[in-house]
Amino acid sequence: VAYAPCDDITGVFAEVEKGRADYGVVPIENSTDGSITDTIDAFIGSRLRIINELLLRIRHHLLCRGERAAIQRVYSRHTVFGQCRRWLASHLPGVELVEVVSTTKAAERAAAEPHAAALASSDAATAYDLPILVHDVQDNPHNTTRFIVVGDPGKGAQPTGNDITTLMLSLQHRPGTLFESLIPFHDAGLNLLRIESRPNRQKPWEYLFFIDVAGHVHDPALAAAVERLRGSTSTLDVLGSYPRAVTALND
Amino acid sequence: VAYAPCDDITGVFAEVEKGRADYGVVPIENSTDGSITDTIDAFIGSRLRIINELLLRIRHHLLCRGERAAIQRVYSRHTVFGQCRRWLASHLPGVELVEVVSTTKAAERAAAEPHAAALASSDAATAYDLPILVHDVQDNPHNTTRFIVVGDPGKGAQPTGNDITTLMLSLQHRPGTLFESLIPFHDAGLNLLRIESRPNRQKPWEYLFFIDVAGHVHDPALAAAVERLRGSTSTLDVLGSYPRAVTALND
Repeated sequence: VAYAPCDDITGVFAEVEKGRADYGVVPIENSTDGSITDTIDAFIGSRLRIINELLLRIRHHLLCRGERAAIQRVYSRHTVFGQCRRWLASHLPGVELVEVVSTTKAAERAAAEPHAAALASSDAATAYDLPILVHDVQDNPHNTTRFIVVGDPGKGAQPTGNDITTLMLSLQHRPGTLFESLIPFHDAGLNLLRIESRPNRQKPWEYLFFIDVAGHVHDPALAAAVERLRGSTSTLDVLGSYPRAVTALND
Repeated sequence: VAYAPCDDITGVFAEVEKGRADYGVVPIENSTDGSITDTIDAFIGSRLRIINELLLRIRHHLLCRGERAAIQRVYSRHTVFGQCRRWLASHLPGVELVEVVSTTKAAERAAAEPHAAALASSDAATAYDLPILVHDVQDNPHNTTRFIVVGDPGKGAQPTGNDITTLMLSLQHRPGTLFESLIPFHDAGLNLLRIESRPNRQKPWEYLFFIDVAGHVHDPALAAAVERLRGSTSTLDVLGSYPRAVTALND
């Protein structure tokens, strides 16, 4: 398999949509920092579906060529800053945080500039020959990120008995529809794992809902619940049914 | 009334908690970019409650002393970048986006550095004597931010007939509790306006839920629904009942 890095999440979706890659791997949720909204939003208007998920334990280190006291600027991704917020506030207060598109880019900048550091992985430290000044600066020692594999709709996974189905929907504009939309799952004994709302950029103060429910869309009970759901939704897409990741891999 | 600016949302909460300010005003949700998670997370472990809300129409401009073609770096807040993402991608592709704590700080930096610009308000342009190179670069022309006023619990508002109650809760760890937690509101005919989940930083992959429901906690029906809710929650806080903002003020 050939791996091709992309600058950002939109870029990963674009490469797969254009057929230049068979699959894309993007982060969707972090155990400390919550949803990665760029990924959620990328499904709006995309034909791509979720094929699989994986959990990766994530460690961040402070990479810097100089002394800690001389650091004036730290480079990293926004989500990484979110996962190290308390550590940064207590150990590097007032230092400028510069958001770049990837932690690789952050290490590259820290290697090139005086008084600059990066929050990045040990691989990035090796690649740019940067010393690790402080190990494991993530606030939560069990910091884990859930990644999803996206691909064309035909590539969906078969049921395994321990699956997740992700739905994207917007509701009809009348009171009570948010609750109504959940009734079919409850009646079918299906466990709701997660509800995320994102602004509908076409309509101010209306939302798109992203719902994770335990089960596979090939299960008759779940398929029937999805059909019932159409009664209270104005749009409804099944973003995918895929095996649930049970153990976290190491970074 | 004396106004005191703070560097960030955590700072606003801290000033009010320490009694150095009677009230704090913080953004909680933007019509384009969604929830402001720093504000949601600030309620975890805080005694402050929501006293009021207000809607403000938000305009962002590109402030720069030089030519647009010479811009190498743009300063702003993360949320502002989120609200101008499409404009930036099509008009300033590849330019470095530097996250700072406020748009005031962004204008200050753009005024001091060559090849730097800021996304900020017209007030910031005036304050730092920066020309507005491009007006209204927000992707959504109706870009509106919902702010809340936070204060001590005793300062809550009386019912007005058009109120919102915000609840923060964590669920008992068994299947079906997310749905169960919504039943009392549905049974009481109360409209759920919004559900937001945030990671529970103490427990990986468990969530805190923030629920907005129409009504005031002094309404008997809502008070009874909240009491019923305790059956499926492991923690439950009423973050406040306050009058619903109906019209957006101009920036």
